[in-house]
Amino acid sequence: MENATIEKKTTNAAIAPKDLLEHWQGHRRLTRKMIEAFPEDKLFTYSIGGMRPFSELVYEFLGMAEPGVSGIATGKWQQWADASKVNTKRELLAQWDKATEAIDRIWPTIPAEKWQQQDVAFGQWPGTGTSFIFYFIDNEIHHRGQGYVYLRSLGIEPPAFWDR
Amino acid sequence: MENATIEKKTTNAAIAPKDLLEHWQGHRRLTRKMIEAFPEDKLFTYSIGGMRPFSELVYEFLGMAEPGVSGIATGKWQQWADASKVNTKRELLAQWDKATEAIDRIWPTIPAEKWQQQDVAFGQWPGTGTSFIFYFIDNEIHHRGQGYVYLRSLGIEPPAFWDR
Repeated sequence: MENATIEKKTTNAAIAPKDLLEHWQGHRRLTRKMIEAFPEDKLFTYSIGGMRPFSELVYEFLGMAEPGVSGIATGKWQQWADASKVNTKRELLAQWDKATEAIDRIWPTIPAEKWQQQDVAFGQWPGTGTSFIFYFIDNEIHHRGQGYVYLRSLGIEPPAFWDR
Repeated sequence: MENATIEKKTTNAAIAPKDLLEHWQGHRRLTRKMIEAFPEDKLFTYSIGGMRPFSELVYEFLGMAEPGVSGIATGKWQQWADASKVNTKRELLAQWDKATEAIDRIWPTIPAEKWQQQDVAFGQWPGTGTSFIFYFIDNEIHHRGQGYVYLRSLGIEPPAFWDR
């Protein structure tokens, strides 16, 4: 019976919550390297095609990260907003590291049923806990890919995509 | 006992294989819209910062997609290669649609244990079935994000990221 249970669990899981956390934090480590790779001024000003500077994309990631995990864990959502703006790369990295710790701290408190349960993220977007986390990760990869073009067009070699 | 089993399964799964397939195919529908959004010539030639034109990124996605799913399902891996080059958007979309059908066909044949089992993708990259699929998806999002900058810099509105 114990074996049957384990087999069923395997069938049902492409990924377990703890591995999804590590996957996301791996991507977040890469995004951190991207922030570091930008020259201080370009981080806050450089743009192509009228798109946002990389710093503004990072405010968006931060606005979803800790508030999002906290919302999934508690079912209480704050209003959607980008993170507060800062003036230096150092401050931005400090915000990033604060979020990293908060995510690690809150994650284990997410009740198991939340992954598949319907909720409304930030009171606006319906989905499951898993779908929200996938959105946060995918959105970060998507906009970070935009940052890769910014760096390349500035003649700067970006960090390797696969190295997290 | 049945309830206990179900609860354990929920705890262990952030996402089930069938939902991971739908998640990926949603992203692939968006990538297809991106291919459609490029002007015919720009699809094969346009670049920023010495990066590859969007068509070449699509060859990379296609090189991973059906061959990757087939490798995970069977444990037999072909040598890594981009998909064959084509000359028109229409041919590229036809290749894309062929891969979409193949992925849907092969996916249910992936043995349950493959998701967590170690293997070596394309004989080169160690990981689990899940980690390979995540890589295929993440890589597609990453390079597609690059395509968004190409389109914006051409003055073309890209398809909405969240609409899959």
